[in-house]
Amino acid sequence: MKILVIGAAGMIGRKLMGRLAREGALGGRRIEAAHGVDVVAPAPLAAPFPIASEACDIAAPYIPPKLVAGRPDVIFLLASIVSGEAEADFEKGYAINLDGTRMIFEAIRREHVASDGSYRPRLVFTSSIAVFGAPFPEAIGDEFFTTPLTSYGTQKAICELLLADYSRRGFFDGIGIRLPTISVRPGLPNKAASGFFSGIIREPLAGREAVLPVTEAVLHWHASPRSAVGFLIHAATMDLGPLGARRNLTMPGVAVTVGEQIEALRAVAVERAVALIRRERDPVIERIVSGWPTRFDASRARALGFHAEDDFGQIIRAYLEDENVVAHP
Amino acid sequence: MKILVIGAAGMIGRKLMGRLAREGALGGRRIEAAHGVDVVAPAPLAAPFPIASEACDIAAPYIPPKLVAGRPDVIFLLASIVSGEAEADFEKGYAINLDGTRMIFEAIRREHVASDGSYRPRLVFTSSIAVFGAPFPEAIGDEFFTTPLTSYGTQKAICELLLADYSRRGFFDGIGIRLPTISVRPGLPNKAASGFFSGIIREPLAGREAVLPVTEAVLHWHASPRSAVGFLIHAATMDLGPLGARRNLTMPGVAVTVGEQIEALRAVAVERAVALIRRERDPVIERIVSGWPTRFDASRARALGFHAEDDFGQIIRAYLEDENVVAHP
Repeated sequence: MKILVIGAAGMIGRKLMGRLAREGALGGRRIEAAHGVDVVAPAPLAAPFPIASEACDIAAPYIPPKLVAGRPDVIFLLASIVSGEAEADFEKGYAINLDGTRMIFEAIRREHVASDGSYRPRLVFTSSIAVFGAPFPEAIGDEFFTTPLTSYGTQKAICELLLADYSRRGFFDGIGIRLPTISVRPGLPNKAASGFFSGIIREPLAGREAVLPVTEAVLHWHASPRSAVGFLIHAATMDLGPLGARRNLTMPGVAVTVGEQIEALRAVAVERAVALIRRERDPVIERIVSGWPTRFDASRARALGFHAEDDFGQIIRAYLEDENVVAHP
Repeated sequence: MKILVIGAAGMIGRKLMGRLAREGALGGRRIEAAHGVDVVAPAPLAAPFPIASEACDIAAPYIPPKLVAGRPDVIFLLASIVSGEAEADFEKGYAINLDGTRMIFEAIRREHVASDGSYRPRLVFTSSIAVFGAPFPEAIGDEFFTTPLTSYGTQKAICELLLADYSRRGFFDGIGIRLPTISVRPGLPNKAASGFFSGIIREPLAGREAVLPVTEAVLHWHASPRSAVGFLIHAATMDLGPLGARRNLTMPGVAVTVGEQIEALRAVAVERAVALIRRERDPVIERIVSGWPTRFDASRARALGFHAEDDFGQIIRAYLEDENVVAHP
């Protein structure tokens, strides 16, 4: 089988490519070739199949048809700019997060039509819990409406609707998975307004200061990068029949307050690490975060076989293991 | 004030223009000029203010900026192709119902930016209950999710999301109103899959046969054209502050079965009129209609001052009065 990963240089994309390379197969089928693209070229990777890597901008109209021309069997569509950037740059956010995605959907539809309907790939799209906007019930159910309070969330909600319609029409077999905030993100901070949720764990563990721009009472929904890759693999291989026309799902996760995150850090790290969290409230980030959802009843996804961590301690341990980080340096 | 009506030649658009012309004012402010456009030129109309009428295609990119260049204070955006046509012609549906609407939103945003933020018109967008898709709860609440089962419903749901985001950003002051099925539509049948809901009343009252393509058990949500115009006027003049970020509302209506519609007809018409309804089930229409919602708890809209008829008899009487139809010819 042939696999296309759009957004292969991002944090989740790299981990997905790494797992595919290690396993050499997806859903019991041998991988013959993979194509990884991103706005910067994904790093080379050893794998039992050839990997083509290239840099491209999915918002450029000539790109999506080229990406799909090889008729990959499975397409992972992970590419987007993050919430803070989409809020700061209205036109860029719509151009990439909405139009780029839509042009990929359109390119698949045209291949489907050109193949007389025989080409109908599995498409896995990463959406976000930012499709929801406050005020919320105590736990957000699987039938709660999407009223995003950011342009990023709006763009994701629109792509979900397109994905469902293109799937209903039979152009591709799509599933949208709404990722929790991914914690603990390795590497450098990015522009996401949610960056501090990882920063307050990752930076102190490395002996560096981290800024906490909100209060400890802020409740949020998390899953590890390892779980995120697990969601993607399951979405790419599961039977989508039970989803019916409702193709977009909130993924399971762990609901914890920032205070509970810090307590979980204290349980694995030395006390001077915890002391590296500097409290400095940022009204812009507080405003964005206050519109985000906090806790979900993700029972539909769990019933369909998706699973995540049970508590934030497990999330930190997954980080220590997967990133070879020593908690007590 | 200046008013722009996009979709002014359609059934609702004509009735809206007629009411504006009769009243000469909107929300207590005198109307100085109106501009009515549609894919065919709206018919001339006597009014105490000048009316410019023209034919244009909102899916042509040069059109939306021209429509908005005069900076109308209130924009009614009623234009779309109907559900059956959007289902039959995928590309046309997206081009007009999604891209046409989005280009109008974009044209307003550009005027807003060009005016240094001082231009921020009221925008009233007609959405549809087709944004919802089965299975449904017994009554659809104001927080139920939008999982449309038609491309038309998908396009409307996407425009709702765009409207909310553009309003949140302050580019315009928008409200989306989800119209019930409008009954009884005067004039000739159109391509809407919902056309029979009006046809089985209108045609027999005129002594003509009407085809009923579904069973009498089909439950549906109706309001009269008179109520629809009332919704538009209220949406254009009310304080939108209480809506917050949730800018799209299901309008009130009357939930009746086709059988109850026929009983309401029997109450005003001669028996031989009722006998003109010919039952001939159409699997295509039955499939489309089976995905449509049936009954709403439109309490949010009612609390905000929108109101419709109480029963289908009132809807038929509104038709007889507004169209000068004699029930017993």
